[in-house]
Amino acid sequence: MGPVAIIGVGLMGGSLGLALRGLEGVEVRGSDPDPEALRVALAVGAVGTACASVEEAVDGADAVVLGAPVTELAPLARRVLAATPSGCVVTDLGSTKAGVLGALTATERERFIGGHPVCGAERTGVAFARKELFRGATWFLTPGPEARPELFERLHGLVSAVGARPVAIDATVHDRLMALVSHVPHVLAGALVNQAAATAPEGREALRSAGPSFHDLTRVAGSNPPLWADILLANTAAVTEALEAFTARLDDVRAALARGDREWLLGFVGEAATARARLREPAATGPVAPVRVVVAVPNRPGAISEIATALGHAHINIEDLATRPAMPGGEGELVLVVDGPEAAAEAVRLVGERGYVAAVGTLSV
Amino acid sequence: MGPVAIIGVGLMGGSLGLALRGLEGVEVRGSDPDPEALRVALAVGAVGTACASVEEAVDGADAVVLGAPVTELAPLARRVLAATPSGCVVTDLGSTKAGVLGALTATERERFIGGHPVCGAERTGVAFARKELFRGATWFLTPGPEARPELFERLHGLVSAVGARPVAIDATVHDRLMALVSHVPHVLAGALVNQAAATAPEGREALRSAGPSFHDLTRVAGSNPPLWADILLANTAAVTEALEAFTARLDDVRAALARGDREWLLGFVGEAATARARLREPAATGPVAPVRVVVAVPNRPGAISEIATALGHAHINIEDLATRPAMPGGEGELVLVVDGPEAAAEAVRLVGERGYVAAVGTLSV
Repeated sequence: MGPVAIIGVGLMGGSLGLALRGLEGVEVRGSDPDPEALRVALAVGAVGTACASVEEAVDGADAVVLGAPVTELAPLARRVLAATPSGCVVTDLGSTKAGVLGALTATERERFIGGHPVCGAERTGVAFARKELFRGATWFLTPGPEARPELFERLHGLVSAVGARPVAIDATVHDRLMALVSHVPHVLAGALVNQAAATAPEGREALRSAGPSFHDLTRVAGSNPPLWADILLANTAAVTEALEAFTARLDDVRAALARGDREWLLGFVGEAATARARLREPAATGPVAPVRVVVAVPNRPGAISEIATALGHAHINIEDLATRPAMPGGEGELVLVVDGPEAAAEAVRLVGERGYVAAVGTLSV
Repeated sequence: MGPVAIIGVGLMGGSLGLALRGLEGVEVRGSDPDPEALRVALAVGAVGTACASVEEAVDGADAVVLGAPVTELAPLARRVLAATPSGCVVTDLGSTKAGVLGALTATERERFIGGHPVCGAERTGVAFARKELFRGATWFLTPGPEARPELFERLHGLVSAVGARPVAIDATVHDRLMALVSHVPHVLAGALVNQAAATAPEGREALRSAGPSFHDLTRVAGSNPPLWADILLANTAAVTEALEAFTARLDDVRAALARGDREWLLGFVGEAATARARLREPAATGPVAPVRVVVAVPNRPGAISEIATALGHAHINIEDLATRPAMPGGEGELVLVVDGPEAAAEAVRLVGERGYVAAVGTLSV
């Protein structure tokens, strides 16, 4: 791969730089509005070249990764797209995805493919960057229907190369999921801490009467106020919907308490026990039996995002992905490597439902 | 101290047994309705003597600790009080306190003093007991006004001896605090997990799309359904009140999102940041400068619980406590050791407000 530019070298961008520079032959350039962050990034080795401007960093790059606040992503993406050649893929690391995709034009979405690595650390900034940050993490990719296959392939490979699991997903689905498993939990943690801080019956402060489980439950509360205010605003519809559904669940608990309904409460906690056990199931760390699926891809836009997203929604990991371009007027091929024969059969079924011809073959390696 | 009996040797009772048996000259007897738990308790050394009945275990004991579900505590306490001499203190380890106190008579509350160590582990049962479980933990004590001073003193000493920090507190205040920092958080974790398990836009399961922070936030979800159903039912009024206040906070967040009010959201997260920083402040691990406070205690009931609770509510740790009984018709003395001259001055002021004569003196040791 040619040069990769990282625009914004904080914890995430810096960690990505470290991870990429640990791979053979990858040149990493960086820029940052904060000169001190850029200096530290160079000092810790997160970038090989510190560039004074966005345009200098992205010049001739094969891939550009934007590590900027969600509110700044769309104009920054547009600026980078204007400064890069047609073979360069542009992505981001933002926690919400529908907003930036929707703010770009269809043409811009040919080369801009949204991304969101689901990981983080308690402390932000490039000084806390580490190359292992993405290892084993889900890294959502949100290709629009316009996304160019070879650019999606390159981004998929880049994400896999740093140890993450790329998962293609619809941007709106992504934002609804994150509302539920990240944004609303942050709101709950914040509200809990604020309520405990504001309550002191007979002078005894609730906040100072908490045990270890309260500490765990509220660990994320209060982290990075501007970042989180912007994430919540960028995902208002989905967060509001999830909060409403959550409040309805709390109302059910109150009603059960008012009835003194022990059976209902047993069911409520028991259901959580069952779900939590499912959450604890360890994710496979690699393909136990790589199986190849070959899909005939007609020469029309949308196929790559449709196929990859269908598999992402169905929890089928694409361990590897290669595109073979179509001859003029003919069909190309998409070769996917998935984990085991069951996933392969399911992948063939799913793409078949969407009108694609596909077949399974075990890898010879 | 004479023999201590532990009735119910689960994680908490078993850990207490291990901690007490690590002290010199303390005899620990145990009983449990589950013979297998009792066998394991004996095998791991959590009890020195395994007794076939409650009455056998408590015979001649100086202190009895009840490790039973909250629903069973009141009848069990009554049974133990009937089987023990007038010099024996009886306490429990339950997560709610007003219910059991209220179910007992004034006479029974002379010797029954509620207790609640704020600690735990992910896995229950005596096999996971460890003697360090209570080290540094807050251990709430809820003496009723009838509590006998010398029995409170013994219980205070027992709790300190296993490394915990005894904090006297009103039972109703305790239950309101625990609703906020423990019971409601458990409900939130359960509701979050249940909602994530029930939501799968386009087939992509929310529960399987969660990152590490969701795992932390929901760690307690689903633990021990019967225990938690009973805790919630035993604290219905306070949990309902806290849930209502919490729901109102969530409504405020939704309203701010509807207005697109970034300033409000910055304040919300920023306030949580301030509070969380306060939560992280490490608790002192021992008296930095032990200061003695001597309080003249008139020969009337209620003084010990009133004084200890006033200090507990005000976050003044009583590091050590000794009672000197009153002569007939005269006054006794209560000697408290608190942490530093400021706490001592505040303690004198607080008990003075309540009509007690008190003075400060630095310990000669």
